[in-house]
Amino acid sequence: MTYTAPVKDMLFVINELAGFDEVAALPGFEDAGAETTQAVLEEAARFNGKVLAPLNFEGDKHANAWRDGQVTTTPGFKEAFRQFAEGGWQGLMHPVEFGGQGLPKLVATPCMEMRNAANLSFALCPLLTDGAIEALLTAGSDELKQRYVPKLISGEWTGTMNLTEPQAGSDLSLVRTRAELQADGTYKVFGTKIFITWGEHDMAENIVHLVLARTPNAPEGVKGISLFVVPKFMVGDDGSLGTRNDVYCVSIEHKLGIKASPTAVLQYGDHGGATGYLVGEENHGLQYMFIMMNASRFAVGIQGVGVADRAYQKAAAYAKERVQSCPVDGSTKQSVTIIHHPDVRRMLASMRALTEGARALAYVAAAHCDIAHRHADAATRAGHQAIYEYLVPVVKGWSTELSIDVASLGVQVHGGMGFIEETGAAQYYRDARILTIYEGTTAIQANDLVGRKTARDGGATARVILAQVDETIVALERHAAYAADPAFKSMHRHLSAGRDALAHGVDFVVANTKSDPNAVFVGSVPYLKLAGIVLSGWQMARALLVATDKQSDDPSFYGAKRATAHFFSDHILPQAPALEASIVSGKSGEGGLALKEEQF
Amino acid sequence: MTYTAPVKDMLFVINELAGFDEVAALPGFEDAGAETTQAVLEEAARFNGKVLAPLNFEGDKHANAWRDGQVTTTPGFKEAFRQFAEGGWQGLMHPVEFGGQGLPKLVATPCMEMRNAANLSFALCPLLTDGAIEALLTAGSDELKQRYVPKLISGEWTGTMNLTEPQAGSDLSLVRTRAELQADGTYKVFGTKIFITWGEHDMAENIVHLVLARTPNAPEGVKGISLFVVPKFMVGDDGSLGTRNDVYCVSIEHKLGIKASPTAVLQYGDHGGATGYLVGEENHGLQYMFIMMNASRFAVGIQGVGVADRAYQKAAAYAKERVQSCPVDGSTKQSVTIIHHPDVRRMLASMRALTEGARALAYVAAAHCDIAHRHADAATRAGHQAIYEYLVPVVKGWSTELSIDVASLGVQVHGGMGFIEETGAAQYYRDARILTIYEGTTAIQANDLVGRKTARDGGATARVILAQVDETIVALERHAAYAADPAFKSMHRHLSAGRDALAHGVDFVVANTKSDPNAVFVGSVPYLKLAGIVLSGWQMARALLVATDKQSDDPSFYGAKRATAHFFSDHILPQAPALEASIVSGKSGEGGLALKEEQF
Repeated sequence: MTYTAPVKDMLFVINELAGFDEVAALPGFEDAGAETTQAVLEEAARFNGKVLAPLNFEGDKHANAWRDGQVTTTPGFKEAFRQFAEGGWQGLMHPVEFGGQGLPKLVATPCMEMRNAANLSFALCPLLTDGAIEALLTAGSDELKQRYVPKLISGEWTGTMNLTEPQAGSDLSLVRTRAELQADGTYKVFGTKIFITWGEHDMAENIVHLVLARTPNAPEGVKGISLFVVPKFMVGDDGSLGTRNDVYCVSIEHKLGIKASPTAVLQYGDHGGATGYLVGEENHGLQYMFIMMNASRFAVGIQGVGVADRAYQKAAAYAKERVQSCPVDGSTKQSVTIIHHPDVRRMLASMRALTEGARALAYVAAAHCDIAHRHADAATRAGHQAIYEYLVPVVKGWSTELSIDVASLGVQVHGGMGFIEETGAAQYYRDARILTIYEGTTAIQANDLVGRKTARDGGATARVILAQVDETIVALERHAAYAADPAFKSMHRHLSAGRDALAHGVDFVVANTKSDPNAVFVGSVPYLKLAGIVLSGWQMARALLVATDKQSDDPSFYGAKRATAHFFSDHILPQAPALEASIVSGKSGEGGLALKEEQF
Repeated sequence: MTYTAPVKDMLFVINELAGFDEVAALPGFEDAGAETTQAVLEEAARFNGKVLAPLNFEGDKHANAWRDGQVTTTPGFKEAFRQFAEGGWQGLMHPVEFGGQGLPKLVATPCMEMRNAANLSFALCPLLTDGAIEALLTAGSDELKQRYVPKLISGEWTGTMNLTEPQAGSDLSLVRTRAELQADGTYKVFGTKIFITWGEHDMAENIVHLVLARTPNAPEGVKGISLFVVPKFMVGDDGSLGTRNDVYCVSIEHKLGIKASPTAVLQYGDHGGATGYLVGEENHGLQYMFIMMNASRFAVGIQGVGVADRAYQKAAAYAKERVQSCPVDGSTKQSVTIIHHPDVRRMLASMRALTEGARALAYVAAAHCDIAHRHADAATRAGHQAIYEYLVPVVKGWSTELSIDVASLGVQVHGGMGFIEETGAAQYYRDARILTIYEGTTAIQANDLVGRKTARDGGATARVILAQVDETIVALERHAAYAADPAFKSMHRHLSAGRDALAHGVDFVVANTKSDPNAVFVGSVPYLKLAGIVLSGWQMARALLVATDKQSDDPSFYGAKRATAHFFSDHILPQAPALEASIVSGKSGEGGLALKEEQF
């Protein structure tokens, strides 16, 4: 049940693919040199491997318990959270002025991956706190920032995001929670919020709820939603905790996975109204949510990478231990460890290739985010921001979709033992299943990718990225290895075909989103998956180039990278043309769209 | 939580695709006319929908309990089993002379699908009993047959298959359970068997264990395994139950899914030896297992079809109820039921197309089995037997792999509610996960397909099937609709490409299995999936032809079939070339095979 953070691969991606040097040279990152980064990653690997990882299975077995509105977390979680807070991990990428460490997202991201790989349920708590911090920094008054952000960063308090209501899941226009202005400028909040991750627990002194609600005369729909801070305990001017606020956890959900993460139903205002404070301007709540949503969605994508890697590590370890059957090539008449069987090897290589590809794409996205925030030149910032925004739904949607497949392969590698809960492989299969749903389902990511990220600029950003893919294709052709190396041949062939498939997908989206939206949106998830496969494959192609050049420096590591890139091009990139076929087939208006409701 | 058996689609497949008339004309099936078949299916639909389906969620919530060697099943199961037995369902396809109804497998198969869709855990008990009946009929002495088979068929007793031991999972050569001959001709059996489905329970008076064991001087490996009958209670000459035999359930497993099906650890011989009776000849146990394995593997494939259909029905019902968001085409500013959103429609159409394709292929295989058993002409029998044997690993492997994907899509359609256990969608995702593992993992099916079913006859059987696919491709071209109908165009294009991909896969397997087994076996699962996609797609093409011709008879049903076939050709068949790329890439010996053990 151990987890060993893949620090070497993380550093490879940071340095060779994501352009660490460019990020480290940005204004404000003067202290984030290569040595600091390596030290941070190694310490994160130690903390997550030793403290959080061993609690993961425990959390599944002894999930949190609700009683009379209180949630008791899994034994060990509270102490682990104390260590997490003391280590300063919550503040890694938050501003120094509020007590954070101000490190690049490119450095915080691998730490986030490790935390999620070690313990997905635990990691959700800091993930939500990050969201609350971002919301307050984005739109909060100076007073709100001063009062709440330092305590959130120090880990004394945690944060939550309250969007969903029973009738309002993906569709926030249906939010009914109401907030009434009081004479003192505060609000009284009334309503029910569901699916509130870490909405109640015993790991921190206070919980800061960020709540979407409507003021009495607000316009209908999403333009009438405002954002409020509602603390569990009232906070005095000196930061001391006061009386209990009128927000209570009335139940927690019985879930398929992430069982150690309490998912609360929160009741606001049953005893006179919960005191809340408006964040930013009235009726701008959804806009603030969207600003921070990129960060949360990216973070959920990283959860996918993390759980995929954990599932891979567990399966690889089992495959090296379990002895069963003689090799198919007859090389010995003895039973061997199952890692010697070709199909087990194929499964492990798939798990590994998907995980490494997703990791590389996510870290590259993080670097774009850093440059978009920090670069001195506005046009450069805008260009990187556009690419980052294109990549966010891909990282979120694709990394989480593949995490389910990878976790499922992990069960399969274990054979019958995989189905037994004590083995632990099934937990990842259950845990991963939420990732394609929360923070916007894959369809919502795909609609964002189609609408706001592709059609809106006429495919301009997508084509900028495609031009970068072309550069890699040319680099493969011009490389000395191209003539004779099967990995280069395979990668060149399948990346080129994938690039064309993605380009056709972009053209289809741009040409038809306005005139025939159903035709485009029925293929939106295939389009997202296509982008995920091709752009991850592109990173694997870049990795192949670097690994080939540096192979003699570290034959085992770079040799493995070359083999994994080759596997990606042989087995995963060829899926691209099938997805293109799905996308462009929507135009006919037949198939899935032709079935009438009553025919289902 | 209801289940409505798709009797209309089942009859369509039976009559139009599987060739019911030819099966009904076989010797011995004189009583199995169209009317009887329809009546049997309708009664099965009623029984499974009303009696077994409502117990499915109950079984997950209140799984069986072990105490002091006894297993108490979910409340309601015992009474449901009594009704199942009284209805004669266990004997549907077993010989009339032992109390069965002697119906074709083609008729029994839809009933089996319904049972598994209604209640996968419950249905496993009759599935294992079928296995025990087949084993006894295949290899048992007349005395053993007379003593055990009628009681198994009547449902008074149930049967189990005891293969696995802690060190012997897929690799039966490692079996250690031993059987010692006694003076009276019986054996004393000693050992531990694990993963014994329905190995202990309270639904029937007796349990008949079929056990693989070694006699003292047996040859090593699989050639030294014999098959024994070991009853839970001794059976007198008059069929009366005697003393308790020395086989005890020492624990049951805590599993990811199928929780109402007790998975037992059975301890044989701790109190002097369990009395067993040799089935057939000594050291021929594995051979008998293989004979009945085709039946069990086919049955597990049907489990995949069943759980996929159940997940589809639940998701479709939810999508028609749940209101969320306005349509993307702006056709109304009101929130609509989510079935109106293109991606929900795509997910439902995928679930439906995969399920219908898998059902059609499985029933076609069942018809081949009937003809192989009953046809008057030996050469005809042999031809159909070869096709059936080729299709069994495909039906088992492909239907179960897709059932996981379909159940996962079912969770996704439910959004956040899908992750909450009370919703019920997650149960199918958990239950389905075992299907690609037991009765031989997908890799084992794929190795069978490659080795015994493709390479051994030099691809002859595969090419017979491909020639039949060609006939369908020609029929599409020659059809009046071909010129203008986009469904025909799409199907012709993608089925032709799929057919070529499969043909290349067969060629690769035939050319390389001996000379480079690792290259072939690393692509064996992709080859199985390719066969599954292309051969299911072929059935959908045949369905498209029939539905187009008969459309005016029943516009809604045939229109839906046309749309589903079209969806299959647009979205699923295009995956074939990617699988071909995976298969043929093995030749290079790089990629997944190139990674050394320590590099994983």
